[in-house]
Amino acid sequence: MSDQKLNIESRITLLGAGPGDPDLLTLKGVKALQTADVVLYDALTNEALLEYAPAEAIKVYVGKRSGEHSYPQDTINKLMIDYALNYGHVVRLKGGDPFVFGRGYEELDYAASYSIPVSVIPGISSSIGVPGLQQIPVTHRGMSESFWVITGTTTSGEVSADIYQAAQSNATVVVLMGLKKLPKIVEIFKAAGKHNLPTAVVQNGSAADEKLVVGVVETIEHLVRQEKIKAPALLIFGEVVSLHPSFKELIKQYASIA
Amino acid sequence: MSDQKLNIESRITLLGAGPGDPDLLTLKGVKALQTADVVLYDALTNEALLEYAPAEAIKVYVGKRSGEHSYPQDTINKLMIDYALNYGHVVRLKGGDPFVFGRGYEELDYAASYSIPVSVIPGISSSIGVPGLQQIPVTHRGMSESFWVITGTTTSGEVSADIYQAAQSNATVVVLMGLKKLPKIVEIFKAAGKHNLPTAVVQNGSAADEKLVVGVVETIEHLVRQEKIKAPALLIFGEVVSLHPSFKELIKQYASIA
Repeated sequence: MSDQKLNIESRITLLGAGPGDPDLLTLKGVKALQTADVVLYDALTNEALLEYAPAEAIKVYVGKRSGEHSYPQDTINKLMIDYALNYGHVVRLKGGDPFVFGRGYEELDYAASYSIPVSVIPGISSSIGVPGLQQIPVTHRGMSESFWVITGTTTSGEVSADIYQAAQSNATVVVLMGLKKLPKIVEIFKAAGKHNLPTAVVQNGSAADEKLVVGVVETIEHLVRQEKIKAPALLIFGEVVSLHPSFKELIKQYASIA
Repeated sequence: MSDQKLNIESRITLLGAGPGDPDLLTLKGVKALQTADVVLYDALTNEALLEYAPAEAIKVYVGKRSGEHSYPQDTINKLMIDYALNYGHVVRLKGGDPFVFGRGYEELDYAASYSIPVSVIPGISSSIGVPGLQQIPVTHRGMSESFWVITGTTTSGEVSADIYQAAQSNATVVVLMGLKKLPKIVEIFKAAGKHNLPTAVVQNGSAADEKLVVGVVETIEHLVRQEKIKAPALLIFGEVVSLHPSFKELIKQYASIA
């Protein structure tokens, strides 16, 4: 290392950017970006957020988009350490919340192994915020006393065993990164006798191109195909989905046919 | 109504304030407060946030604190409507996220019955943010593929049936408003054979007087008494708690005794 680098104070901030709308960043997040020497950012973060960082800060895209080259986690970890040692304050900007399927703890742990201090700034998780922006409450008195958030994409490639348990439960079930597994997940809910459970799928929640379909377990695959819903998308299974205006509209339509 | 009131544009914003640290408010939240004519705020929101509202805005405390008079939900609903009709933009500022046990949908529904438009701005839910600030990830590859958030306080006064299911599951289980029910909840986890499941309790997460105890299901009640943990507090049950530095310390201590 050069002499210059001796005065560098290396530190890392794991920062949750929220679901996409740049105004869903926290004030604490803005302050962290304002003091960044380097920003490492993901595909799911809005690039408008980079403007809070100083003009001279280094901004590095480490995400992956469908079909593009993606950085393995190991590479991201190493980049993060290299930049912290050489430049100072690294803000690791991640979509949603760093610890909701964000592999945030792996990055924290890796930094700790180099004795580089890490701060965590939570972000609005799409699991709660995206249904909320659609005015679908994840909990509602007399309807849902809990919500269960599950990844649709596991290391093994199989559907998480937790989805089988969730389909049996009374919880509102939110599945992130589950669109590709929708047929299997629908099958699991049907096997639990939940054919008529209200179900919604939201594409690109909180962003300008947000898209929503609302139906029941039995109809949701058809609706997703019809409306050409694409990833990233979030699945919501639960009675609370019936509170959405378009579900109320559906009920009226059925009533008028019957 | 007087003639003056004819030009009033009534609207309501349900705004999540986050877990307590005022810097965990979103930029969108700041903008909403800046255009408030009236702010109705809860006990769990930080009063520092009121400074974002115009000086001339009316600020009304509608929360309850232990032992004090509390406003029934009906009264809050009616105040919200009255203020919207008479003053314009009401910001309903709620702790955490409006739809995570916040009775937000009841307020939204009531406003809709008066045809007053409602916007929702999500907040950082303490269920994710408070463990995260403690560097306890609610999910972690190879350890937890899901998290389940449950209320400890139900309408009936009984422990939610969902807690019995959750104790059997592999999910990280987060219980909000559950401190008073801790003995019963511990009993449920023990009945599921989870005596040694890592467990944490966080009092006043993200605030200056934040306090944490870390142990296992078997020891957590003793630790809560010993450290005089008080509400509001959040319970975390799951292997992910073992990632907290004080849990690693505990393991070292046990190892040195054995």
